[in-house]
Amino acid sequence: MFKKILIANRGEIAVRIIRACREMGIETVAVYSETDREALHTQMADEAVCIGPARARDSYLNMQNIISATVLSGAEAIHPGFGFLSENSEFAEMCRDCNITFIGPDAESIEKMGNKSRAREIMTEAGVPVVPGSQGAVPSVDEGLILAEQIGYPVMIKASAGGGGRGIRIVRSSDEFAKAFETARSEAQGAFGDDTMYVEKFVENPRHIEFQILADGYGNAIYLGERDCSIQRRNQKVLEEAPSPLMTEELRKEMGEVAVRAAKAVNYTNAGTIEFLVDKHGNYYFMEMNTRIQVEHPITEMVTGVDLIKEQINIAAGRTLSIAQESVQVKGHAIECRINAENPEKGFRPSPGKIERLHVPGGLGVRLDSAVYQGYTIPPTYDSMVAKLIVYGRDREEAISKMRRALGEFVIEGVDTNIEFQFKIINNKSFVEGNFDTGFIGKEFNL
Amino acid sequence: MFKKILIANRGEIAVRIIRACREMGIETVAVYSETDREALHTQMADEAVCIGPARARDSYLNMQNIISATVLSGAEAIHPGFGFLSENSEFAEMCRDCNITFIGPDAESIEKMGNKSRAREIMTEAGVPVVPGSQGAVPSVDEGLILAEQIGYPVMIKASAGGGGRGIRIVRSSDEFAKAFETARSEAQGAFGDDTMYVEKFVENPRHIEFQILADGYGNAIYLGERDCSIQRRNQKVLEEAPSPLMTEELRKEMGEVAVRAAKAVNYTNAGTIEFLVDKHGNYYFMEMNTRIQVEHPITEMVTGVDLIKEQINIAAGRTLSIAQESVQVKGHAIECRINAENPEKGFRPSPGKIERLHVPGGLGVRLDSAVYQGYTIPPTYDSMVAKLIVYGRDREEAISKMRRALGEFVIEGVDTNIEFQFKIINNKSFVEGNFDTGFIGKEFNL
Repeated sequence: MFKKILIANRGEIAVRIIRACREMGIETVAVYSETDREALHTQMADEAVCIGPARARDSYLNMQNIISATVLSGAEAIHPGFGFLSENSEFAEMCRDCNITFIGPDAESIEKMGNKSRAREIMTEAGVPVVPGSQGAVPSVDEGLILAEQIGYPVMIKASAGGGGRGIRIVRSSDEFAKAFETARSEAQGAFGDDTMYVEKFVENPRHIEFQILADGYGNAIYLGERDCSIQRRNQKVLEEAPSPLMTEELRKEMGEVAVRAAKAVNYTNAGTIEFLVDKHGNYYFMEMNTRIQVEHPITEMVTGVDLIKEQINIAAGRTLSIAQESVQVKGHAIECRINAENPEKGFRPSPGKIERLHVPGGLGVRLDSAVYQGYTIPPTYDSMVAKLIVYGRDREEAISKMRRALGEFVIEGVDTNIEFQFKIINNKSFVEGNFDTGFIGKEFNL
Repeated sequence: MFKKILIANRGEIAVRIIRACREMGIETVAVYSETDREALHTQMADEAVCIGPARARDSYLNMQNIISATVLSGAEAIHPGFGFLSENSEFAEMCRDCNITFIGPDAESIEKMGNKSRAREIMTEAGVPVVPGSQGAVPSVDEGLILAEQIGYPVMIKASAGGGGRGIRIVRSSDEFAKAFETARSEAQGAFGDDTMYVEKFVENPRHIEFQILADGYGNAIYLGERDCSIQRRNQKVLEEAPSPLMTEELRKEMGEVAVRAAKAVNYTNAGTIEFLVDKHGNYYFMEMNTRIQVEHPITEMVTGVDLIKEQINIAAGRTLSIAQESVQVKGHAIECRINAENPEKGFRPSPGKIERLHVPGGLGVRLDSAVYQGYTIPPTYDSMVAKLIVYGRDREEAISKMRRALGEFVIEGVDTNIEFQFKIINNKSFVEGNFDTGFIGKEFNL
């Protein structure tokens, strides 16, 4: 087992990883930008190394500095968390070249899954259902137009290198196609330096359901049930739950096995997530694979009892999975609310600043993964998510009542937060009935 | 189901009960003494009624005022928590007379189990093993001496009405007997207004193992596994865990069934605890029954998944148990550390005062049941316990590593606490090996 791990991240996920390491008896090295000197992860780790100025590209995305910090601190492995360098195959390769274990899949898997059109091809070959669309890249407007007619509108134009909702356009008729294709392409070029585009059927108001998978270096791969992440605002997840209200034992087994097949198709190791779209008729389509731990991983931990970060570390250290598929049980119900420093009344504008007062919820079935403390100043530089409130109940009804109770206890003063907005979601009739899709927030809140 | 419940308590247990009520959709009424105006339970409840001056006897023990507050607020039931009026049969009766549901057993059960020598008799009749000793009260020194010779020294002289370690003497030879008997008797008279004494064999350095039971009004009674509460300082529990490191499936079943028999012998309803002493040879003896929820109830909740406070409320409302014995599973391992505002370096002297800074542990498997917030002033009037830190792990080893990690994250500034002392316990070799008894703290820390 590793003696020392460097965490190439910040915020609550860095804290989450430090906690897992500490419980495993592994020393931790935090890295921090100049603006994160007082951040919780910087304070909590056994050692902390400043890796550059506030801007992410100068620090948390600065591969050279992170590798140097690793070598100098004597850490044997890097946990990349999510975001930043977590899905950067070049970084994974650089780690390998420096004899540092990258806690995640190998560079090849990251690259294959990171290229959306390539991933589609691999999935199709592996017999994983994908949304009907182009085989590989669509080089021109004309070819795209022919394909769109074949698939039938609405269609989605997507950047191969895409992510975070950029480089995506929905087109409802042939009139709109040419313009949408060109703007998406130039957006992709600007954002990712890659203007490869593809076209697929646009699934109207789907459920977003994703499967957590774990795979070790010995050919063992398992799924740990699903997460329903349909509650989104502009493609950003807001609230997640496990299991999905629409899931059945049979469908879970079927989709879970497909997810494992998808992972095996790229010789995947470590933790990963297969995201599916599920349409009104119950058809499911592979959307993409996230080759890293996800923000919403805690809800899977709550319903399966498996510590995913510890599994990641164990797998990277060459151990086998601690649990077999037959032993995985989905029990009870978990919900996660992302707590963001933002103002929903003002277009969800980020609200950085000093936390003047903080009181966090507690008690049975309440988990808080947070990176803040009273007196901490949230910088304007990074993501606005400052905490994740996770609850666990015997069933969905209890989990909802628990989240309602826990949100009511949460006090954050000094910055605006979305706590009240989360409260509205959890009290929404359609949500309570389990009757929602990715259009939920737009429809219910006119957003 | 009740619409409104009054909580006749303060501190973290009042908060715990408010949380359960809120999740069940039940309105809550807090009562508070003049000194508890700013207490968390006072702030959290839907309504709050001041019931008198700081001194417990003027407020939290003031039955008339509490009944008045209940009637005036329109609450239909009272949850007494632990301590204060929770084992006061007179209060339970008063509730009944006023048509208020007392959330606990009926007055008769409380009275039978509250009288230690009476309880011994009932248990003996029910075939529950008790420590060898007197059948009923021992009226005089002479009779006590004869009995002590029969049982064999060391023996324990105990007040029938006893509790909290008062009115108890351990006698190792006949020379000491007379004096010890008289002083214990006068102590009992002073403390409880009752000098009825009994004598039993003193079990040297036993394990303290207790069984949680639940019984509804329809004859269903179950046990929810055991808690090991051997880590004590002067008969006060300091750290508890579930399951007990020495427990086997067979012994659990045997003792659990004995515990249920004990409860049934007094037609017990609601939540209760049967405390056993277990000697070096694995013999177990009934010690006493606590006819209320206990401080350490959360560890049972963690390993069984049963919310004991909700069960209490359901039972009191006339519902059946939500779980059958066959479905009760003890899974994983939980540990609770009582966090007290006290100074272990200075004889564990209470350390009331203002909490200048507070940062609480979080993350997977960490639960905090607390009654404090940053800026809160702990009054000198009541118990020094301000929070309970509870962790859950897959096994005992993980639970210990988790507690170590969580204690390390806990920051309380402004008052002294026993966090460092708990840290020493959790890192103690004998503790880690599961090799301890009620003499542990005395032996390992010279206390």
